[in-house]
Amino acid sequence: MYNLLKGKKGIIFGALNEHSIAWKTAERAYEEGAEFVLTNASAALKMGNLSVLAKKTNAQIIPADATSIEDLENLVAKSMEVLGGKIDFVLHSIGMSVNVRKGKPYTAPNYDFTTKGWNVSAVSFHKVMNVLYHKKAMNSWGSIIALSYMAAQRVFPDYNDMADNKAYLESIARSFGYFFGRDQKVRVNTISQSPTPTTAGNGVKGFDGFYAYADKMAPLGNATAADCADYTIAMFSDLTKKVTLQNLFHDGGFSNMGVSDAVMEQV
Amino acid sequence: MYNLLKGKKGIIFGALNEHSIAWKTAERAYEEGAEFVLTNASAALKMGNLSVLAKKTNAQIIPADATSIEDLENLVAKSMEVLGGKIDFVLHSIGMSVNVRKGKPYTAPNYDFTTKGWNVSAVSFHKVMNVLYHKKAMNSWGSIIALSYMAAQRVFPDYNDMADNKAYLESIARSFGYFFGRDQKVRVNTISQSPTPTTAGNGVKGFDGFYAYADKMAPLGNATAADCADYTIAMFSDLTKKVTLQNLFHDGGFSNMGVSDAVMEQV
Amino acid sequence: MYNLLKGKKGIIFGALNEHSIAWKTAERAYEEGAEFVLTNASAALKMGNLSVLAKKTNAQIIPADATSIEDLENLVAKSMEVLGGKIDFVLHSIGMSVNVRKGKPYTAPNYDFTTKGWNVSAVSFHKVMNVLYHKKAMNSWGSIIALSYMAAQRVFPDYNDMADNKAYLESIARSFGYFFGRDQKVRVNTISQSPTPTTAGNGVKGFDGFYAYADKMAPLGNATAADCADYTIAMFSDLTKKVTLQNLFHDGGFSNMGVSDAVMEQV
Amino acid sequence: MYNLLKGKKGIIFGALNEHSIAWKTAERAYEEGAEFVLTNASAALKMGNLSVLAKKTNAQIIPADATSIEDLENLVAKSMEVLGGKIDFVLHSIGMSVNVRKGKPYTAPNYDFTTKGWNVSAVSFHKVMNVLYHKKAMNSWGSIIALSYMAAQRVFPDYNDMADNKAYLESIARSFGYFFGRDQKVRVNTISQSPTPTTAGNGVKGFDGFYAYADKMAPLGNATAADCADYTIAMFSDLTKKVTLQNLFHDGGFSNMGVSDAVMEQV
Repeated sequence: MYNLLKGKKGIIFGALNEHSIAWKTAERAYEEGAEFVLTNASAALKMGNLSVLAKKTNAQIIPADATSIEDLENLVAKSMEVLGGKIDFVLHSIGMSVNVRKGKPYTAPNYDFTTKGWNVSAVSFHKVMNVLYHKKAMNSWGSIIALSYMAAQRVFPDYNDMADNKAYLESIARSFGYFFGRDQKVRVNTISQSPTPTTAGNGVKGFDGFYAYADKMAPLGNATAADCADYTIAMFSDLTKKVTLQNLFHDGGFSNMGVSDAVMEQV
Repeated sequence: MYNLLKGKKGIIFGALNEHSIAWKTAERAYEEGAEFVLTNASAALKMGNLSVLAKKTNAQIIPADATSIEDLENLVAKSMEVLGGKIDFVLHSIGMSVNVRKGKPYTAPNYDFTTKGWNVSAVSFHKVMNVLYHKKAMNSWGSIIALSYMAAQRVFPDYNDMADNKAYLESIARSFGYFFGRDQKVRVNTISQSPTPTTAGNGVKGFDGFYAYADKMAPLGNATAADCADYTIAMFSDLTKKVTLQNLFHDGGFSNMGVSDAVMEQV
Repeated sequence: MYNLLKGKKGIIFGALNEHSIAWKTAERAYEEGAEFVLTNASAALKMGNLSVLAKKTNAQIIPADATSIEDLENLVAKSMEVLGGKIDFVLHSIGMSVNVRKGKPYTAPNYDFTTKGWNVSAVSFHKVMNVLYHKKAMNSWGSIIALSYMAAQRVFPDYNDMADNKAYLESIARSFGYFFGRDQKVRVNTISQSPTPTTAGNGVKGFDGFYAYADKMAPLGNATAADCADYTIAMFSDLTKKVTLQNLFHDGGFSNMGVSDAVMEQV
Repeated sequence: MYNLLKGKKGIIFGALNEHSIAWKTAERAYEEGAEFVLTNASAALKMGNLSVLAKKTNAQIIPADATSIEDLENLVAKSMEVLGGKIDFVLHSIGMSVNVRKGKPYTAPNYDFTTKGWNVSAVSFHKVMNVLYHKKAMNSWGSIIALSYMAAQRVFPDYNDMADNKAYLESIARSFGYFFGRDQKVRVNTISQSPTPTTAGNGVKGFDGFYAYADKMAPLGNATAADCADYTIAMFSDLTKKVTLQNLFHDGGFSNMGVSDAVMEQV
């Protein structure tokens, strides 16, 4: 609509289906003139329908397990080949808690599940940047975004170990963002998004009730996946070149609310 | 360049000369297709050369003392008349400490100066929103931005009582932002900008040394006035509709640094 | 009970009646072996029954309007005389919004009331420290505490302009705390206390409902005035000498909650 | 000195030698009347001289690998036996980065080292609480503290992956603290301590330079290990019963400094 990403090249991780924030972001990036590669793990590629999105956005799909340096090296090398140059933007939209899936309570996890979830949800972000950084695959003033959630700062009991994973993820953004900024003028940020009824979101126990609560608390209501795509486009664009190491709340104002009148009426 | 503000109408407070962030923002807003009114206090209008900007951006100047509800009511009414409709964006870039100007140390201010600076730098933002809110002068999903500085959170000894004024300003953004969001779907945020060599910035004791320090600390270096104009455009655009009550650091990463290698080398 | 404040001398502002946090703190300070002066404004002295507390804690009352430098100079001089030396601890428990009292909504205040409330609730803290600092009235490693509330960070709609006043107050603690620490080795902090059914607390619209909500949100429930007195004693003691410039949440955990199960059950 | 912990029983993890914060805390806890068990991993027991401390504080040593649920179950069971009842306070002072030890840069870690460091430094805290919680081993209003560092919030380039580990650790404090508070009235907090010349601290590259920098930045200078012991005692005592889910900066004010005059003079 605005040509904000005209000529820019990207890699988008984590689109599963049309409810995904990554999916919406890909659609919007395409509208804004970007070319990009879509990627996800093989299992996710089977579950979802990414080829529909690929066709619609004229994008190639390159499978990669984001916990595998080897896969990521292949992904980045092929992406630069396919796109004909260095990368301008990356979206990391990957998160998964085996403890949540298996119904383990936070206080009694299976620690192998904890490790797996941490590895997939948080360390993968480090690995993605590790490969991009060492391959010098990013253009100067490129933008890397990972999606996060406010459970990194505040307690949401049902969010389980994803809270801790998001805290670690946001810390990676700062820690790696320093070196990426200093050495290659690349910015790294996280977007802390409203609860969103994606496939992952709906997997959290009591999601509907919590979604309604957040919507009542936020003066502008919850931000949707489409809203988040718009915001991510702004963060990929040249308008936000000096924003880095930040965790950006995109939540209709929820994060700075103590209580709203709408919630007080209910309790 | 992108038509991001095409058809949008605004009011820009606080442009003084070509170094001002508000000046740069006006230039960029014009490039992005916006129409707007420029405003400043009479004294500032005499000091600066706002008419040059007005001509360049095809804007009218409507003088207003932002501490006067009467002036603000006149400004808002006339702006809607001139622009032919409701307002989509407002920039509050107003700040002044009489204690700083008169060389009073933070620990021994003249409290009348303190009150005056607070009134001009912070309460004016409440008054601007008060008038906009009660006149229902903003379009839904309009965006109001005030410029702030990280001294609101952390100590910069020479910033004097402007630190406290900025803390109050940011609190107003949250407090009023709640009502403006809930009732009129308008978002309110502050941008916490790098030290910037504007006329106001240069008035702070030891500005040059501090500017250099911040530039060494921030992995991407200090954000310039032009960078800030770009970021403000993004925050005025429809891409950021669900961001509200936030204080947005725009500082090359300074705010999340403990120490950089470049600073450590120097000390 | 522990002799934590044995031999320490203090000034306690703002005790009104037995519900006051300052009252409870005075009682606890007395138990811990401190000597202190009690002070309040003349109007408050008439409203409350401070002489009962004075008798109980063997303290003198020295009236002072905390917005008057002259009164404060007299207070500090006389306190040192009465107590026989420099001051070790100061509690600032002063807050008042004329807009709240007169039922003015946040969006449409009387700005004279706003100024008065800011002056009483926030600037008074600057003035207290100004006088202590210039008179060199504090002993090294002395401790100055002001009471605050989380509305300084997050929106509680009925807290009105006290939110902005508390934000300013907390900023003063940082700004002045830097100079007081650097020059006289005195620490300055704010305690951000749970909603507390004091005379001031009960004056806030809808206090009971909000109190119950906060109690449900906090995993340990609301902190009482007596709890706050205990915590304040710890912050006055020699155990916390290196804590400064902080805003310390004392709220049963409320401040770091996104939502609790108990609140979710209700909505 | 004050009998603040008279009759209280505790477990102290992580004392290595007389420079350790845990060592100083044990000494102070003993002075305050507490009984406790000292614990560390077998390797650390060989490296250090914990038996000296045990003798001095009349404490038993029970070895435990804090990453082993089995060891922790044994530790907690034996501690209750030895101490003759439930536990009132726990100090987790455990942290180790294999990447730091092996000189791996943050941007190119060995991910097995990353996992190991995360497991030892952060997950161990979850496991400790898991065992205490399920054994109902804590008395009501007990206090659990883990030591952290500000790298969890801000970038200190040489702190490497310990930054991310501390972010995860602090998140665990909130996440588990909610359940521990709600269900057993136990508080959980982290103390974010100044850089401290312990054996671990000295292992960080460029520690001396950084220590001096922090000391110049903090208005009260760096907090020492002995200061931290005092503060931890306060957090174990009954004076701080309603403080939970917090990360408490204990750093002479560093965390809220933008820049100090002393640092500006140097750069």
